[in-house]
Amino acid sequence: MGGVSATLLIACPDRSGLIAQITEFIFKQGGNILDLDQHVDAEKNVFFMRVAWDLANFKIPKAEIAAAFEPLAQALQMTWRLHFSDETKRMAIFVSRQGHCLYDLLSRWQANELRVEIPLIISNHSEMEPVAQAFRIPFHKVEISAATRAAAEAEQIALLQAHNVEFVVLARYMQILTSDFVGVFPQQIINIHHSFLPAFIGGTPYHQAYARGVKIIGATSHYVIANLDEGPIIEQDVARVTHKDSVADMIRKGKDLEKVVLARAVWLHLQNRVLIYDNKTVVFA
Amino acid sequence: MGGVSATLLIACPDRSGLIAQITEFIFKQGGNILDLDQHVDAEKNVFFMRVAWDLANFKIPKAEIAAAFEPLAQALQMTWRLHFSDETKRMAIFVSRQGHCLYDLLSRWQANELRVEIPLIISNHSEMEPVAQAFRIPFHKVEISAATRAAAEAEQIALLQAHNVEFVVLARYMQILTSDFVGVFPQQIINIHHSFLPAFIGGTPYHQAYARGVKIIGATSHYVIANLDEGPIIEQDVARVTHKDSVADMIRKGKDLEKVVLARAVWLHLQNRVLIYDNKTVVFA
Amino acid sequence: MGGVSATLLIACPDRSGLIAQITEFIFKQGGNILDLDQHVDAEKNVFFMRVAWDLANFKIPKAEIAAAFEPLAQALQMTWRLHFSDETKRMAIFVSRQGHCLYDLLSRWQANELRVEIPLIISNHSEMEPVAQAFRIPFHKVEISAATRAAAEAEQIALLQAHNVEFVVLARYMQILTSDFVGVFPQQIINIHHSFLPAFIGGTPYHQAYARGVKIIGATSHYVIANLDEGPIIEQDVARVTHKDSVADMIRKGKDLEKVVLARAVWLHLQNRVLIYDNKTVVFA
Amino acid sequence: MGGVSATLLIACPDRSGLIAQITEFIFKQGGNILDLDQHVDAEKNVFFMRVAWDLANFKIPKAEIAAAFEPLAQALQMTWRLHFSDETKRMAIFVSRQGHCLYDLLSRWQANELRVEIPLIISNHSEMEPVAQAFRIPFHKVEISAATRAAAEAEQIALLQAHNVEFVVLARYMQILTSDFVGVFPQQIINIHHSFLPAFIGGTPYHQAYARGVKIIGATSHYVIANLDEGPIIEQDVARVTHKDSVADMIRKGKDLEKVVLARAVWLHLQNRVLIYDNKTVVFA
Repeated sequence: MGGVSATLLIACPDRSGLIAQITEFIFKQGGNILDLDQHVDAEKNVFFMRVAWDLANFKIPKAEIAAAFEPLAQALQMTWRLHFSDETKRMAIFVSRQGHCLYDLLSRWQANELRVEIPLIISNHSEMEPVAQAFRIPFHKVEISAATRAAAEAEQIALLQAHNVEFVVLARYMQILTSDFVGVFPQQIINIHHSFLPAFIGGTPYHQAYARGVKIIGATSHYVIANLDEGPIIEQDVARVTHKDSVADMIRKGKDLEKVVLARAVWLHLQNRVLIYDNKTVVFA
Repeated sequence: MGGVSATLLIACPDRSGLIAQITEFIFKQGGNILDLDQHVDAEKNVFFMRVAWDLANFKIPKAEIAAAFEPLAQALQMTWRLHFSDETKRMAIFVSRQGHCLYDLLSRWQANELRVEIPLIISNHSEMEPVAQAFRIPFHKVEISAATRAAAEAEQIALLQAHNVEFVVLARYMQILTSDFVGVFPQQIINIHHSFLPAFIGGTPYHQAYARGVKIIGATSHYVIANLDEGPIIEQDVARVTHKDSVADMIRKGKDLEKVVLARAVWLHLQNRVLIYDNKTVVFA
Repeated sequence: MGGVSATLLIACPDRSGLIAQITEFIFKQGGNILDLDQHVDAEKNVFFMRVAWDLANFKIPKAEIAAAFEPLAQALQMTWRLHFSDETKRMAIFVSRQGHCLYDLLSRWQANELRVEIPLIISNHSEMEPVAQAFRIPFHKVEISAATRAAAEAEQIALLQAHNVEFVVLARYMQILTSDFVGVFPQQIINIHHSFLPAFIGGTPYHQAYARGVKIIGATSHYVIANLDEGPIIEQDVARVTHKDSVADMIRKGKDLEKVVLARAVWLHLQNRVLIYDNKTVVFA
Repeated sequence: MGGVSATLLIACPDRSGLIAQITEFIFKQGGNILDLDQHVDAEKNVFFMRVAWDLANFKIPKAEIAAAFEPLAQALQMTWRLHFSDETKRMAIFVSRQGHCLYDLLSRWQANELRVEIPLIISNHSEMEPVAQAFRIPFHKVEISAATRAAAEAEQIALLQAHNVEFVVLARYMQILTSDFVGVFPQQIINIHHSFLPAFIGGTPYHQAYARGVKIIGATSHYVIANLDEGPIIEQDVARVTHKDSVADMIRKGKDLEKVVLARAVWLHLQNRVLIYDNKTVVFA
């Protein structure tokens, strides 16, 4: 609301005076802090911070802020990222045959609930092509099989790079990405897994949940790492089930979880509210 | 409310006419059905039913109902149980050092929220003895170690049998029961596990949850079988956590889950609302 | 799954033998009960039942079942409805400018999650016309103002009747229907209200919730009666908020509630799982 | 964990540099910030902050910190409070006949989950006296009626003051406090209301909820102000109900909500995590 703001995301060894020094940097240059959240992992002695400030009266031009901050960042051994509220990220969506997450993301995008550009949708099937067309987003079918995986992923990566895609959302994409692919987009691939991880890892979580007789099912959105289903968790949610719920009922109820959990994770990512550390996330919600 | 009622719990192969025949048995003898719930496992072709009826005008005396029902039960190959609302079950509580579930159960019992007799509390430690005394329930300390397990369990079983205990509640009892012990009280031991099973099986679930970086923790109440943490689940519930929650915070939040999940499971068991089938439960809640 | 089934929904004065007589009617004619749920309002002495049975071996032809059941229904003073699983209801959607519920319903419909025909969408604005076109559903704009309300509603009713619409879903339709309109579709209009009714009745519930400082917001789906926001509640759900959430944040979080709560209500209605009694619902979920 | 810490709670007009100046005050004196949370009410231009720091190397002695901070506080027009982690607040519990919240608070206190002293319990009835005795807390019966209210409240206030009570918890105390009483303990009386406020204000919320046919019930903990049920909300939670739930069932389910919601509110209050502003709370959880 109002003008452009800057957001710094910081992780560094904890020590006295971090907040004072960082906020003084902003204050001295005329920045008014809009939001600040911080966290200390006392066990590992790591400090995390997210701070957003109004650039209206900030004396340093946008393009020079990073350079101006660098000396302090180096002195305090920071890992850091700087974002601006007038940037729009570029996101690709991967999907297979099921469209519930795709529809949900696209309708949020169309309603301006998600500020993002979606230059393309990639699928290993054709079923979702009409949905892409309805929203006027280019659709690319890239068939994939065990034999063609390497070539298919190369084609996908070429497409993503040609469209300057910054991050990828797997909206019920039923193929496993190789570690090579993941390595090209580190911490920039968001998946939705249809279980309450770490329960029911793998391919048929609702069948597993039914067989175990659980009373609650879940969905988990996480960043993708080389080991399937083991990446840093961004968001989870659950729903009640009873003995009356068949596997089909669980799938139906689970779809609602998958949609909303994935959408929340994408929203948090777009808002630059997620830091990854030690295969876990700090989510400044 | 009102007079005595009878409750039948039935499992049998599914076929046409089951409900008609069972409800006709009740109707013809003057019984007014208060509540009926049924479920068919279509995959395994098994029929489950719970039916409760008012005995006010029922023509068959209480003591003869079972015999009167037996021919129909045999004809339809039923597994069945008959309960009366004026029965009071006898429950033993096992506890170790942590008292939150014990306090919760005892205060519900004292407020008549749980209709049950509690002839004794057994612990492998002394810390909870004052709590037992405050509620005027005999407390028995039975120390247990790897070396003395067989003798200790024999002592526990003798105590339970001497007090005519019908079922056992493990209210954060931190010892693993042997399959011998479980075999003496089949489907009559209720445990509370401090995780959202099947996630985080074993001894330190909150530490595991913290390490994995989950955003939701849970608690699970289940019947105890020989394989630890793998028995039929009666009830589960969850709570949100964030990166701010240390293991200690998770333990604190988890206690509230453990209390309420265990209390609900005990209540369902006392109300004869749980059927066990295929290592799962049918809960007619 | 498999063949056609029949579903009876019944309300009548409670008395002994109801279930026995109804299930015997089904059993004697060769029907196999797939699902039965019942409820007694002990205070008002009213019995409710939903029973579904397979018609595969049922001796009475579909077209004659109602007549065959009528004598029993009269004898027991029933209010009753009979449905068949191969019927498809006809639903109209009313919408104003916000599309989140519309998108959600249409994508569920397209994914066959909702078995229903949608012959038309009616709006008092034009914004949602492209959405209707994308899903290839006729869109009718009927402008409405205080001065034109009577004529506009007459036009809407004519459209609904011309398309044989059986029930209407108000998917964030921001006009108040007159009691005349409601009288044409009694118990056949489903609304979504963006608050946890009966809290925050009226037009700006999120603003009211923000001003009151609640920690949880909600959404409510209900049948529409003449008195706004006071009809029988079908489904509700809630989400946590904090002091950090502005009205805009509540609106954003609330949209997710509205979508899923309305979708569940429509699903329950389509499944013939809702009975209305005494301005409340019995939901055989 | 570790040594003594200080906690500052601040509210003041928002302006640039607040965080920088406050954290610099702490940093310059050798304090290491353990936790900082802040919030800006953009609409009203008010800044809120909670900051806790380790006193281990802090150069200002505890007794002089307030005076040292005062100049900055005045310059920035702060309303502020300073707390130390080695302080133990003194809490009185008021209760009537129902003991579930009382038991819950006392068992948490006994398990050291709530760091607090409880010098007395006050009731207008005798039923809870044995509970107080079991926990060895002095119990004072102060009968109250319309005719004796003024005298009774005077007696209560005298008791509270004689015991140096700092705040009062109404653990299902079924009398309405006068504004005179409330005025003696401003923002220091915590109540639990057995509904999801602002729905179902007044004396029989579960009966109202049953009559309205809601699908979710709730409980609300709030600070008491002169207008009943309208004080700043600290915490709320909800539970699902169905048409099967009688008023008695709602009361039973509601008790579990009341216990946990009140306990969370008391915990937040004890942790000095609640700021009151404009009849709402900022909860730095």
